[in-house]
Amino acid sequence: MYFCKDDIVQLEQRYRTQLINSLSGFKSANLIGTTDKAGNENLAIVSSVFHLGAHPPLMGMIMRPHSVPRHTLENILDTGVYTINHVSEDIFISAHQTSARYDKTHSEFDAVKLSPQYLKDFKAPFVSQSKVKIGLALRSSQTLEINNTELVIGEVVELHVEDAAISQDGFIDIESLGTVALSGLDSYHQTHKLGRLKYAKTSEAPQFLDPLNPKPFD
Amino acid sequence: MYFCKDDIVQLEQRYRTQLINSLSGFKSANLIGTTDKAGNENLAIVSSVFHLGAHPPLMGMIMRPHSVPRHTLENILDTGVYTINHVSEDIFISAHQTSARYDKTHSEFDAVKLSPQYLKDFKAPFVSQSKVKIGLALRSSQTLEINNTELVIGEVVELHVEDAAISQDGFIDIESLGTVALSGLDSYHQTHKLGRLKYAKTSEAPQFLDPLNPKPFD
Repeated sequence: MYFCKDDIVQLEQRYRTQLINSLSGFKSANLIGTTDKAGNENLAIVSSVFHLGAHPPLMGMIMRPHSVPRHTLENILDTGVYTINHVSEDIFISAHQTSARYDKTHSEFDAVKLSPQYLKDFKAPFVSQSKVKIGLALRSSQTLEINNTELVIGEVVELHVEDAAISQDGFIDIESLGTVALSGLDSYHQTHKLGRLKYAKTSEAPQFLDPLNPKPFD
Repeated sequence: MYFCKDDIVQLEQRYRTQLINSLSGFKSANLIGTTDKAGNENLAIVSSVFHLGAHPPLMGMIMRPHSVPRHTLENILDTGVYTINHVSEDIFISAHQTSARYDKTHSEFDAVKLSPQYLKDFKAPFVSQSKVKIGLALRSSQTLEINNTELVIGEVVELHVEDAAISQDGFIDIESLGTVALSGLDSYHQTHKLGRLKYAKTSEAPQFLDPLNPKPFD
């Protein structure tokens, strides 16, 4: 199937939204926990969180200005802090439901039966049921002129992860924690590990890092 | 396991890189195909491609200025076009190997035995073996001051996908095409579908969209 630029422009809008949202590949599934200045809690699923850098530890995410997570953006700008919580298999249905357009005064935590959790004096709520809980401080927010989306960048200042999931080299086995992947707008996926590959060198053939996975490269 | 900001700063650098790269959740795995002005081909795996918008159809990616894909960034800025090609199970080992530091004159296509493919007069090479092939025109490139990474934004102007993978509503079943997900720096994963969920409404309980997956919500 081939689409040129004109074909894409002429697609029915919802069809195009589904199609284009499928193109980037698998996405992260995260719940963003915030409060407004009065302490009203908000929780929103986002598929746009991405790694931006490790030194300093930075994460980016894209917020659409006219979609549901707008309360999230306002809260982040107002309070300067937010949490990113991995969505795992046991909570993905509740997590998806946070995308419904609840009123600002109606906490999505209550609506979808997930529990807010306050840890170590951090001001934004974590999701108690999540297995990877990250506290972030807002570092920058900018409108991308090309389509008026907002690029929000935060620094990791708190991190709670199950001990057993952290490998000796720092890698977190998020598959073992049940973290799900997203595709398109609404498709949720478990994962099955193919293997970790060694740092690639021009002088060496590719090799698996995991001793349990000796699948050879041909 | 708990890490505060100071704990993170004090981690050994490679450990921290692995740890922080694991935090965003699953990532997309894509091969970026480019040429320089002289026509020398380059191919680089990136895990930072993300959906930016459907109207117009825009995709973003983050390039680290001092890492291998620098040739990629130079080529995109020089030619204004590039391709994004899904990494599937049958090519993920070759795809990973493109991250080795090959000389600019040494095509990664040759080095890892993937085939460049030129389609419909588009100037940048697609990966013949890939099941989702996207041609993009550069729309903007900006340095993010916070850590000197480059945010590259392109518009989808060409798209080649296997017909059978496109659902009636425009969703592409990338799992059926064998597209892999990445975690951390080097871990590759197959996926197993949990289901598609309907557009969420405050007045309705969550529902699966797939008729074959009637798992109820409790």
